[in-house]
Amino acid sequence: MSVSVEEGLALLKRRLVEINDVRSAGAVLGWDQATHMPIGGAASRARQRATLSRLAHQKATDAELGCLLDTLHSQRQGVLEPDSSLVRVARRDFEKASKVPAGFVERASAHQSQSYAAWTRAREENDFAAMVPYLTKSVELSREYAEFFAPFEHVCDPLINEADEGMTVAEIRRIFSELRPALIDMTREIDDQARLDNSCLKGMFNEDQQIAFGLLVVEKIGYDLSRGRLDKTVHPFSTRFSSGDVRITTRVRTDEISESFFSTLHEAGHALYEQGVSEELDGTSLGRGASAGLHESQARLWENIVGRSYPFWEYWYPVLQNRFPGSYADVSLDGFYAAINRVERSLIRTDADEVTYNLHIMMRFDLELEMLEGRLNVKDLPEAWRARMCEDLGIEPETNREGCLQDVHWYAGHIGGAFQGYTIGNVLGAQFYETALQAHPDIPQQLQRGDYSQLLDWLRTEVHQHGRRYQPNELIVRATGKPLHVAPYLKYLCEKFDALYSLPVSKDRSDQLVTVQSNGALPTTGGG
Amino acid sequence: MSVSVEEGLALLKRRLVEINDVRSAGAVLGWDQATHMPIGGAASRARQRATLSRLAHQKATDAELGCLLDTLHSQRQGVLEPDSSLVRVARRDFEKASKVPAGFVERASAHQSQSYAAWTRAREENDFAAMVPYLTKSVELSREYAEFFAPFEHVCDPLINEADEGMTVAEIRRIFSELRPALIDMTREIDDQARLDNSCLKGMFNEDQQIAFGLLVVEKIGYDLSRGRLDKTVHPFSTRFSSGDVRITTRVRTDEISESFFSTLHEAGHALYEQGVSEELDGTSLGRGASAGLHESQARLWENIVGRSYPFWEYWYPVLQNRFPGSYADVSLDGFYAAINRVERSLIRTDADEVTYNLHIMMRFDLELEMLEGRLNVKDLPEAWRARMCEDLGIEPETNREGCLQDVHWYAGHIGGAFQGYTIGNVLGAQFYETALQAHPDIPQQLQRGDYSQLLDWLRTEVHQHGRRYQPNELIVRATGKPLHVAPYLKYLCEKFDALYSLPVSKDRSDQLVTVQSNGALPTTGGG
Repeated sequence: MSVSVEEGLALLKRRLVEINDVRSAGAVLGWDQATHMPIGGAASRARQRATLSRLAHQKATDAELGCLLDTLHSQRQGVLEPDSSLVRVARRDFEKASKVPAGFVERASAHQSQSYAAWTRAREENDFAAMVPYLTKSVELSREYAEFFAPFEHVCDPLINEADEGMTVAEIRRIFSELRPALIDMTREIDDQARLDNSCLKGMFNEDQQIAFGLLVVEKIGYDLSRGRLDKTVHPFSTRFSSGDVRITTRVRTDEISESFFSTLHEAGHALYEQGVSEELDGTSLGRGASAGLHESQARLWENIVGRSYPFWEYWYPVLQNRFPGSYADVSLDGFYAAINRVERSLIRTDADEVTYNLHIMMRFDLELEMLEGRLNVKDLPEAWRARMCEDLGIEPETNREGCLQDVHWYAGHIGGAFQGYTIGNVLGAQFYETALQAHPDIPQQLQRGDYSQLLDWLRTEVHQHGRRYQPNELIVRATGKPLHVAPYLKYLCEKFDALYSLPVSKDRSDQLVTVQSNGALPTTGGG
Repeated sequence: MSVSVEEGLALLKRRLVEINDVRSAGAVLGWDQATHMPIGGAASRARQRATLSRLAHQKATDAELGCLLDTLHSQRQGVLEPDSSLVRVARRDFEKASKVPAGFVERASAHQSQSYAAWTRAREENDFAAMVPYLTKSVELSREYAEFFAPFEHVCDPLINEADEGMTVAEIRRIFSELRPALIDMTREIDDQARLDNSCLKGMFNEDQQIAFGLLVVEKIGYDLSRGRLDKTVHPFSTRFSSGDVRITTRVRTDEISESFFSTLHEAGHALYEQGVSEELDGTSLGRGASAGLHESQARLWENIVGRSYPFWEYWYPVLQNRFPGSYADVSLDGFYAAINRVERSLIRTDADEVTYNLHIMMRFDLELEMLEGRLNVKDLPEAWRARMCEDLGIEPETNREGCLQDVHWYAGHIGGAFQGYTIGNVLGAQFYETALQAHPDIPQQLQRGDYSQLLDWLRTEVHQHGRRYQPNELIVRATGKPLHVAPYLKYLCEKFDALYSLPVSKDRSDQLVTVQSNGALPTTGGG
């Protein structure tokens, strides 16, 4: 190869942009399918998306791309940032993609579509038995996928690495083992007390007005509507087509107001991340969020740490009252704040509050490891699910529909690697927020005024703009000075829910935090 | 090649479906751009669409596809219908696509995007001078494109063949020379009389209610909403993603009721054609409408011959009155029927009535031939436009915005072949309708009852289902027993507008029709 470094980089970018264009087209087809597509389009749409996936995979594993990347890697002394990161990341992506044979991609993709279609029926009909063959095959395919990346310490490590690069089963188990006892304790303590009243969230709420209020808030926060839009879907999601087009969706119920609002805020958190990635990275391997956990951290930070905070509603509650006078004229800010933060042992993950949410995640994580390890037979999943619900949350579902059939993830063909990101995100969101607060102590006062500039600027500078330039763990240390650790999150939960419920053992947990912090993290000031 | 015919056909279909999937994905991206895309997505979207076009072109000209088609062609004795048509059409498509070098496709595509973007500004600012370099280049590119298909009788023949296979400049000139004098006469005769009152079409009309009424009508006609949908766009269009997903759009004004309704009906006519193509052809080269003229015939038949007919409104006018009581309680059916059929010399093609519409088309056709032949310099287009408007319609535009800048076609890079389809469609729509009426004489009585079954069934059977199985001219003869001829159309116009305006020379024109019919067509019964 006799191309110069500049020519080589230009060639590389042209190839990467082409792959990205095909993937973005696939994303547009997915968005359209969820938002506007008539039912008659379903069969052809599945095939069209599979075709685009196959073409993208062919181009992403083209031997000429591999040669080009090797050449550029050998010339890396002459390559400046961000191009040197680009070569590194693109080369890693290429090597990963090349390990997976096209035939496997095709088989897995076909299975995923079939399994998903079967699940939509099976969940409706509460028919777990119908899903056993699909789930069994998903476990097999996931194991087969992992084998392409052998050797590994745990069969789930390659699957986790796919979503949260650099994370392992061992590391996640360590984090979860610090969280779980504390969260189980908190849940028990709160359960001994009177429940907070959340009846003000129920009633009749006009759909368009709910959407309009959500849009008002997320635009104020910084979601740029000239580069995005909000639509209604059955399952909320965010999706990126380019730096200039990052869309979100929400689900709206007319008998409850919080679900749509917090979904909108959650997805806007994802979209703020994507809109904040430096534009010069657009269309290349670096031009998107760095991992599932990092993405979730942004979503949960805006949804919960900001969106369920008191100062946030000091600004927005009068606006909400004004827009829904029939529902909120006689409800105090304190009453509304308590309602949106009520803790409750519940069956459905997506309805769970901040305290119990991670317990739902951890049990899914443990169960998927057991299935992958072959220790849990797929047909015994419902029983294992009920046992673990009982142990951690003290309740158990009467139907599988409210149990192991509730989430799409496993049934869309992802066994392993699909759930840990949510809890990593919760933990990381608190870690980012704590660091931002140290840099800008009056962020809460800004929130009271409906001003998000300092917080968003900090996130833009420390997290968003970099896209995939740094590995997730590297980015976390650069932004916060410390690796991922649970102390800020537990501190945040203790302080918040102590104020709402006055937790008897929160003093003990404060001591516990110091132990937790000794695990590689600097001590932080005080407990809840 | 040692594959069997069956294996070869299966291979062929797999390749064609893949090409079709990539093109359909491009169509989804185009639809999204026109309906929902935030402005920030424009630059990346143009690139994404260009990437998909390039990939589709690469696959459509792949040498292996050519070999496969040659093999199947040599084995054609063993291939049954519709596969033998598929091999024939796919082979013709391949040969055509292969004549155009990828480099040209890329250059032309880039120029088209730039020219279109420049036109949206230039039309706004009435700045024709800004478009001269773009239009000059478009003429050059169109000539260059034509040269790939040399030899030809006229430089525009390959461009026309692209949209209306089998048609030539000579044939279109013959048809237009029969139409033009008759239409100019009719326009003059009508202009001597009192204008019909169309003030009842103006007022204030709720946007959602207009959309709802349009949807009600097109669904009743047979547009299947489980395989389609209606959205609002700046320019109405219809688009096919698969047999299960054929969408239409309309433009809605709140101060005028007819534009949105007839746009909806027009696009539904296109969509009925696509929804009616036999499902077994879906995804292959045969699975869409056969030509621009045939497509337009379906659109204009439903929009005008049915949608502006008296029997049609005998059923729908009471519904319209009921939905817009403030506007129509005091307007008679006759008054409304006259309003939607008022003839008027006007500047804008898309606003033109049935009598003058084709005059707009013919002048565009002649002007583009002159530009392609080099007899008309691009910079002199505004003057030539005004002169021809004066000659044919007796009025001339004060601004180029209302003149030669009004239509997108030339500025989106299509000089030659873009306009004749509209008039072919008008002529052909009448020819189809006349034949359908011979088979089912009580179609007008059905229309009075809001029943479209006989007409739609006839169109489905004779036109829609075949997709591209027959060449357009062959399909026309199969369906109507005659080649394309103007007599039924002139007869239709004479009868309709004689009743509305009582035309003095319509008796003469009836004789004239007999002459026209002698041109290869069987005589039809009576004149206007």
